[in-house]
Amino acid sequence: MARELETLWRNRAGFLGDAPGDNDVALSTRIRLARNLTRFPFPIAADAGQLEEVRQQVRAAVAAASALGEAHFSLALEQLTPEEQELLFERRLVSRELLTRETGAGLELAADETLAIMVNEEDHLRLQALRPGFRLEEAYRELSALDDQLGSILEFAFHPRLGFLTCCPTNVGTGLRASVMLHLPGLVLSQQIKQVVAAIDKLNLAVRGAFGEGTDNRGNLFQISNQSTLGESEQQILERLSSVIATLIAKEIESREELLRLRKYELLDRVGRAFGLLRYSYRLTREEALTALSAVRLGVDLGMFRQLDLRLVNELFLAIQPAHLTRCAGVAVEPPERDVIRAGLIRERLKKITGA
Amino acid sequence: MARELETLWRNRAGFLGDAPGDNDVALSTRIRLARNLTRFPFPIAADAGQLEEVRQQVRAAVAAASALGEAHFSLALEQLTPEEQELLFERRLVSRELLTRETGAGLELAADETLAIMVNEEDHLRLQALRPGFRLEEAYRELSALDDQLGSILEFAFHPRLGFLTCCPTNVGTGLRASVMLHLPGLVLSQQIKQVVAAIDKLNLAVRGAFGEGTDNRGNLFQISNQSTLGESEQQILERLSSVIATLIAKEIESREELLRLRKYELLDRVGRAFGLLRYSYRLTREEALTALSAVRLGVDLGMFRQLDLRLVNELFLAIQPAHLTRCAGVAVEPPERDVIRAGLIRERLKKITGA
Repeated sequence: MARELETLWRNRAGFLGDAPGDNDVALSTRIRLARNLTRFPFPIAADAGQLEEVRQQVRAAVAAASALGEAHFSLALEQLTPEEQELLFERRLVSRELLTRETGAGLELAADETLAIMVNEEDHLRLQALRPGFRLEEAYRELSALDDQLGSILEFAFHPRLGFLTCCPTNVGTGLRASVMLHLPGLVLSQQIKQVVAAIDKLNLAVRGAFGEGTDNRGNLFQISNQSTLGESEQQILERLSSVIATLIAKEIESREELLRLRKYELLDRVGRAFGLLRYSYRLTREEALTALSAVRLGVDLGMFRQLDLRLVNELFLAIQPAHLTRCAGVAVEPPERDVIRAGLIRERLKKITGA
Repeated sequence: MARELETLWRNRAGFLGDAPGDNDVALSTRIRLARNLTRFPFPIAADAGQLEEVRQQVRAAVAAASALGEAHFSLALEQLTPEEQELLFERRLVSRELLTRETGAGLELAADETLAIMVNEEDHLRLQALRPGFRLEEAYRELSALDDQLGSILEFAFHPRLGFLTCCPTNVGTGLRASVMLHLPGLVLSQQIKQVVAAIDKLNLAVRGAFGEGTDNRGNLFQISNQSTLGESEQQILERLSSVIATLIAKEIESREELLRLRKYELLDRVGRAFGLLRYSYRLTREEALTALSAVRLGVDLGMFRQLDLRLVNELFLAIQPAHLTRCAGVAVEPPERDVIRAGLIRERLKKITGA
């Protein structure tokens, strides 16, 4: 399996996009649809034989459909090494929940990582589209095409009044969850972020830190997503989310401009120090690296770096994660050495960039 | 006066030397001799007329002697601007005590800053020799020649049993205080410095931080000097100090080697981060700059920088002081802006140095 997946690890990860011309604030857009097959119990209640049967049916349907492309991956997770599983997790292609299922867990994956299906996670199918930047419509169009193709082959559990049936009641209806990952250092630095998070909560949307759980916001990356799947059409959900995201982006840009006006040297200093840390340190924890990368990303957005582009910064956000570092080092590395390898990797990638 | 002194500010300062081939640990050597004229009360008890008379006599004697060179400066401190006074202080050519004297304070100074005489400080004359590196003998030879020349012209207060008479009893006898400035980051990092300071105390030698008072050791710079001036000859004082300094240098080098062996990445990381901070920050306090310069100096000593030499690091130790910064900026700058200017100056000086 390792050799087959090598092409995947060499990919840019879909979740950290940098489509040219895109807004700097929005990193990526992700939408998922929860679907289940009739005649099978939900994964939580299914036995090994039923899970395997579901996985086979999904695999056959994907092979027959064209949406994932010919060169797609069709993975049985129990055949992967723990390292390969972690790499998929760090690339946001599988969830912790999928990884903990002992048998029957699968992943159908387009070679460019923009479309994926988790099989036998909480639901039989979790269809996902990932796009760089702020592209809800485009992502939904693509995901919807995949959904239509699979729905014509497989029999999805659907209730005329409730909509799509899902394992957890919070997903019943559209089964749709859309999220946009935003980089909000301006709102964090100007201490407006708490207020913003509270406002988003009231709109029945969710905010999560991009790394780790809960309100953790290392890297100043935030995922904004819809909470409810019932009572609104797919289009209504996306439009409501879209309008909030657009407002947030405008607020972030406004706060950056104000910071540049009122606290210019503080801002330059923060970015400069972060770059100096990444460029010259010999030991870096993941937290330090994320925080510094966030500041440098802001610097790139503000035009402080001539030689540095978002592409490289985004690659580093991924490359410094533990499993990616281990792959890069060629041997399993544990925390104290990992920090040394992390710093070495970043120094190497930044060594040609001299000026701020 | 400003124009005449311009040539002085452009000098390298004598107290931060970098004579090639010298030991990295010892930055500079300084010796001073306290001398007083017969027939005049000590400055503390002298009136303005007497102070002026002393200054004139010293000036005339220096002009007649050859030791300070033809192009020496002969300064009446009350004719200098406060900025010029501060510059002299930061270059370690005058003391705070001399600057607070309202009339009669003078400075006779060799153009290269290696020899100087403070006039009407605590004593009528404080002869000083400054040399880069660890050069007690050479400094004493030079200072002694100046002392002999002046002593043949002026009548120094001398008691056949006690030796040279001085205002403060702690200087009676030789009137000699010799000090060597050492850079001891290895002993600080390996937490041996407290022990070392205690041992030096027991030997009746004094340890002071190079910047500020007392035990403050910003920049990991320490001045080691003799405490007593009575009961030992000049040669005995210098030999005793010399042997302790040699031991300290050996201990420092040993501790660096041990750190490199046992805590290599911690050491590299400390140096790298310090360099990154100096190279890319936009606001730097004096404390941060001193600490970072100390770490970078250690890195230069350890051979981490191909493009960076001690000369530049030593220049920066001086250039980041408030009065030197103000001179550099061309206008008086106060703390918040001063930190911005300090960081800008350091960035500018280091901008061509890319690799660690």
